[in-house]
Order: sequence, then C-alpha cells, then structure tokens
Amino acid sequence: MTRVADALDILRRGTDEILLEADLEKKLNQNRPLRIKAGFDPTAPDLHLGHTVLINKMRQFQDLGHEVIFLIGDFTGMIGDPTGKSTTRPPLSRDEVIENARTYEAQIFKILDPEKTLVMFNSSWMGEMNAADLIQLAARHTVARMLERDDFNKRFTSNQPIAIHEFLYPLVQAYDSVAIKADVELGGTDQKFNLLVGRQIQESYGQPPQVIMTLPILEGIHSGAEKMSKSLDNYVGITESPDEMFGKIMSIDDEKMWRWFDLLSFRPAAEIEALRTEVANGANPRDIKFRLAEEIIARFHNQKAATAARQAFIDRFREGVLPDDIEEQVITADAGGTKWIAAACTETGLTASNSEAIRNITAGALRIDGEKVTDKNTQLIAGKSYIIQIGKRRITRIRIRK
Amino acid sequence: MTRVADALDILRRGTDEILLEADLEKKLNQNRPLRIKAGFDPTAPDLHLGHTVLINKMRQFQDLGHEVIFLIGDFTGMIGDPTGKSTTRPPLSRDEVIENARTYEAQIFKILDPEKTLVMFNSSWMGEMNAADLIQLAARHTVARMLERDDFNKRFTSNQPIAIHEFLYPLVQAYDSVAIKADVELGGTDQKFNLLVGRQIQESYGQPPQVIMTLPILEGIHSGAEKMSKSLDNYVGITESPDEMFGKIMSIDDEKMWRWFDLLSFRPAAEIEALRTEVANGANPRDIKFRLAEEIIARFHNQKAATAARQAFIDRFREGVLPDDIEEQVITADAGGTKWIAAACTETGLTASNSEAIRNITAGALRIDGEKVTDKNTQLIAGKSYIIQIGKRRITRIRIRK
Repeated sequence: MTRVADALDILRRGTDEILLEADLEKKLNQNRPLRIKAGFDPTAPDLHLGHTVLINKMRQFQDLGHEVIFLIGDFTGMIGDPTGKSTTRPPLSRDEVIENARTYEAQIFKILDPEKTLVMFNSSWMGEMNAADLIQLAARHTVARMLERDDFNKRFTSNQPIAIHEFLYPLVQAYDSVAIKADVELGGTDQKFNLLVGRQIQESYGQPPQVIMTLPILEGIHSGAEKMSKSLDNYVGITESPDEMFGKIMSIDDEKMWRWFDLLSFRPAAEIEALRTEVANGANPRDIKFRLAEEIIARFHNQKAATAARQAFIDRFREGVLPDDIEEQVITADAGGTKWIAAACTETGLTASNSEAIRNITAGALRIDGEKVTDKNTQLIAGKSYIIQIGKRRITRIRIRK
Repeated sequence: MTRVADALDILRRGTDEILLEADLEKKLNQNRPLRIKAGFDPTAPDLHLGHTVLINKMRQFQDLGHEVIFLIGDFTGMIGDPTGKSTTRPPLSRDEVIENARTYEAQIFKILDPEKTLVMFNSSWMGEMNAADLIQLAARHTVARMLERDDFNKRFTSNQPIAIHEFLYPLVQAYDSVAIKADVELGGTDQKFNLLVGRQIQESYGQPPQVIMTLPILEGIHSGAEKMSKSLDNYVGITESPDEMFGKIMSIDDEKMWRWFDLLSFRPAAEIEALRTEVANGANPRDIKFRLAEEIIARFHNQKAATAARQAFIDRFREGVLPDDIEEQVITADAGGTKWIAAACTETGLTASNSEAIRNITAGALRIDGEKVTDKNTQLIAGKSYIIQIGKRRITRIRIRK
C-alpha cells in the first residue's frame, strides 16, 4: 500500500479544499478501504470533461485501494419539481432512472474501475423512509444554519421565495452519507455547504463525520471563466468523436492548458512540472497541448484513435498555421442568434467586403474549422467559436457572442 | 333547519375571529352538514373549562346539524420531541394514544353528541405518508411565510434556534384539513397562523379553503389574565367533584363571570343580557354566579349534584360571608414555595401577630376554605388561593405568589 504521506500528496492535487485534512490522514492511517461518496444528478447522463475532474479524483482513490460509491440521486429526481413551476424538471420514471444509470456506467467506466465501484441509488433508502423519519431527520438542523447557504441567503435577503422542501434536499443528501457510511464525500466547490451538512448529520446519527473534499469547477473551452456546461456549449463531451475532442482541446488557451493538465491529466505531478520547464525553455505550447489532447482522447477512445486525431488535425491546418497561433476575435450575433459568414469575414477584417467573402466561397477558398464551405448563405451560431481560413495565409478565430 | 342568519348569530358568539365570514355564510347556504375540525393534543387528556370553550362551539355546530371531527394529533405525539431536548415530551406508544383517546371521549361526550362526532387520529393518513409525499407537501409553503408566525419570528430575530422539523408541523396540521376535507377549523387565538396555513394548503390541493374560527383563551380562576392551565394550577377540571368546581367557580371575580357566561354557558345570549340587567338593577352578582356554577356542574355531573354543591357551599360559609365580598390579597411564598399559616395571617392583617394566629387555631376559630384548621404548622402552597376566616367577621382571600 502507498505510504499515507504519498497518498495525501496524490489526493491533494487539484483539490480546492479538504476538511479536515487531519481527519483524512487519520482515516488513511486506519489501513482499510475507505468509502468514497460522490453524488450525481440522475437527469443529465451526458458527461463532459467538467464532470471528470471529480471522477478522476474517485479514480485516484480507487488506485489507492479505496471503494468508490457513485451515488445517483434518483429519489429527488423521481419527485421532479414539486412546486410544478419548472417545466425543465419533469419527474423521472424508474425506467428512465435505470436507463440513465446505464448511460452513466458506459461513460464512467472509461475512467473508473468497475470492480471497485458501487453504483447506488438513494431511492433505495429514501424510498423506504416515511414522513415520520423525515421529520426526525429535519429536527437535526436549524433554519438559521440552512439560511447560511449562499444561494438561500441571497434569495432570503432579496425576498425571493424559498419553498420549504428546498431545506429538506440538503438533509436528504446528508442522510445519504449516513446510509452509506461515507468516509469521504467529493463534490464541486459549489457543493461545500451541502457536504458540510453531511458531516453534521452523520455525527448526529453517531457516525464519525465524513471528510469533505471539494474540487474546482472546470472552465469551458472558450476564453474566460465560465464553467464548462452543456447549456453554454463550451464543453468537451466524453462521448464525442476523437476529431471533435482534439479540435476543442486544441482551442483552449495556454494558461488554461496547465489547469487542464492539473485537473484532467493522470500524469504524475513531477512530469507536468517537467513539461512546464520545457515550455519555459522555448518549447511550443502547441506541442504540449497535443500531448494533453492525445492523453484525454486515449482515455475515452484509445491510443490509436488519439494518434489519428492528431494527424487529422495537423492535416486540416496544413502549412503550420495552427489554432494556437491565432488571436480570437469576438463579434455579436444578429437578433436571430446567428451571424452570416460573409458579414463575419468583413467585420473581422478577413475580407474587405461581403462580396469578396462570397467570391472566396464560390471559388472554394474558404474553410470553417478546416472544412471547405460551399454554401454562401452559411450562418455561424451564437455561443460557438470557429476558425475561419481563406487560402493559406488569411486565418482568424471568431467567437460569436449572443 | 335554522335560518342562516340565525345560525351565524349563534356561531359568532364568543368567537375572536371568523375568516372569512362570507365563506362561512356561503357554506351554510349550501344546506349540507359541514365538516367541522378541531385538533387536540394526544398527551393531555385532562380537560378543564378552558378546553371546553372550543368544545362548546363544536356543540353549537352539532346543534345546527353539522358534523364535528374531534381530531387527535397522535402522529406528532408518537414522534415525541425529535430533538431529544425536551424530557417532557416522550414519544407516546399506540396503546397510550388509544388510552388517552378513551379518556378524551369520556370527557367530551358530556358536551358533544356522540352520534354527530367523529373521533379521528391523524396517524391514519400521516402514518401512510412517505418522505416523498412530505417533500411534496413542504413544497407548497415558503420559508419566509413560515417565519411570519409570531413565535418563529421572535426566535429567529433573537437568534434562538428553530429546528427545521418545526416548519413541517404546521404543514402536517394543514394537511389534516385536506385529509378530512374540513369546511371549518376551530382553534384558540394562538392557533390562527396554523389555521390559515390550512386554508392555503387546501387550496393548493384543489379544495375550497376552510373557514377558520378562533376562540379566545379562557383565563384562569385567579384574578389577572393568565390563561387557564394545569401548570398554573388555576383551572377547573371537568372531572373535578361538584364541591371543588363550585368553590373554584365562585372564586372568580364579577367581571370574569360575564366572560365565563359568554364562553361557557349554553344560555341564549338574550337570557345572559337579562342577567346583566338584573345585576345593574341591584341584584347580588354572587347569586348570578351561583347560576353559572350550577349550570356548569349540571353539565359535567347532573342537576342534583349541582344543587347539592350549592347548598354545601352556602353551609360552609354561614352567615352570609361569601367569597365574592372578599378582596384578594397576594403575598409571597418563602424560598421553599410555601407560607406558614400564622405568618400569612399576620402579613395580611388578619391577626396582629403570629402568636395571635396560633391562639385562634388552638381555639378552633380559624378556617381555610370553610374547613376548620387544627394544625398550627399548616403551610399554604404557592400558586394557590385560600379563603381564611377567623371567627365570623374576620375574612380575607390570600393568594400565595411564588
């Protein structure tokens, strides 16, 4: 088994907070497989790299000999939005939950070891819980402390309604830790409050409190700090094709690349440090980014696909004009949420006029993301980012803002 | 059937608020038996006159042809105090609940018509409710609105903890109205907030909202506005002996007597008005109080017992020195919570010294509540009120304050 000090080093990497680290050390010293909990929403089984930050940490625990519980919060998912106000949260049927769980499994087992992973559903115990039990659970926390949660506090002080059941959900999540006797719970930084409630509720049930470990929220591929999410269309889905993945990963800027190495790469910290030194000594960051993209694609597809994606990427942008040499320009979409390709070329100075842009399209000289465009009415979509190339020399990256 | 206008007159008597009276009128106009709900605590089956204010109103509804639901809140009673902080609220077993219900029935059917009374237990539906149902229920109310309840508001603003389950109890009470499809709910003025939650929750379940009717809290027998309660020892229990009842009722002051007529007597309003006129024209209020005492004793025992209690009372206080001619004096108990009879006599000026008081006791000349006292070490108990008489002329009422 790994020495505790070494295990701590590995586990610390990329985390935002560990509370309490001393408790984690104590638990690691017990020389038994710890029970590592991470909760997932049953409604969104399409995972992207943002989700994998957490899953990678689960994998590290597995590699260190611990047991990982992939907990699907289907109990509340099957309730849906009880206020009926949100049409985007219809109650899930049991069949849908099972179907979604299968979809999850197909994705997470590209990272996790199925042998050391328990996929659990909190409906197993919450479905058995009756109203009296829930009242007993609710008695273990106070209104004032619940109102300390950031979002509750903001809504309360700005007189936006908080329905009472919203106070019960963190308690349900906390009770899940009791039911599975979690030693550690992982979550995004935005989950810190809920994870701490778990500690407190476990103690009130006579259990040693779980260690909580928060992981940073991964930013999306576009420049800026917006979190990776499907709705912002700035994500890299883990089921996307090798070519799609490669193009998206290569589009991130150099600073973000190092963050992605920390949060997404399985390379040892020392190796990443060595890569930084290479760049500091004059290596092209683009070549280092190639390695990141290949590693990630190999994980979700295989090494052969990763190598091929790399070659295809290079072929598309011949002559060494590659995306990370390109400045991004941001232009605004029309009212309809799109931008005509010719107008985009003119606004960014790629062409002097719309008619020049059209002539290039007709001549087969204009490429979007390396693909030749033949339809002069092509529309670019708000929220997306494109590499537009005319001939061999003229190239720019354009992001369309809403 | 009684005309709606007349029914409203009867129902309005002695109430604090009816919300909305227009709704009540509408329901009465539907010419069907309304479902009248009143909730009772399963832990305190010893009823006193204070409880009967509400039960009398239930009786009036019965007399008008409506159906009364005597609802025993055993669901929360069987939970007890889930915080475990209160040792005074141990969870009740089902056997205790049933035993308490029998004790209730033995008492309430002295006022209510058993044929028109449904005794129900909210565990019937709440026991079936699962955690998901309770979450759905909790979604129908907001934190901010719950915090408007006076006691919650006071505790919240003074940073005293409110456990989250306390927000669920008013919702359970409200759901009881849904389960029994209540047309009207009766409660003390201190229940107004909870009764209003019932209206709102019924509407959210698609039911017409109940009319709420609040009844004043009856004050105890001592002078002042303290509510009648067992813990203050200022109550008239409905299972007390005719003599005990008679003595206690005769001890209330004249102003309180009229309030008791309104809230406790079944005499028509016009008849009570006539009694007021008699007193205004010079009748002795004591004689009117006799009638109140007799009516109440006849209700809980029988007419013969009432007449006998009256005679016994007169016999005890011979020579026309009767309690309502007597000013009450309040003196403070010793640290031990009692007061020596001789000291009480001296402090109130009944005797010039303790030794004079002892001499009177030895001579058989001192009476407490009409009973001769022979033990010169007699102690009076804090919280109680006594009529102390020496010979025929010297008399006072003493209340011992803690």
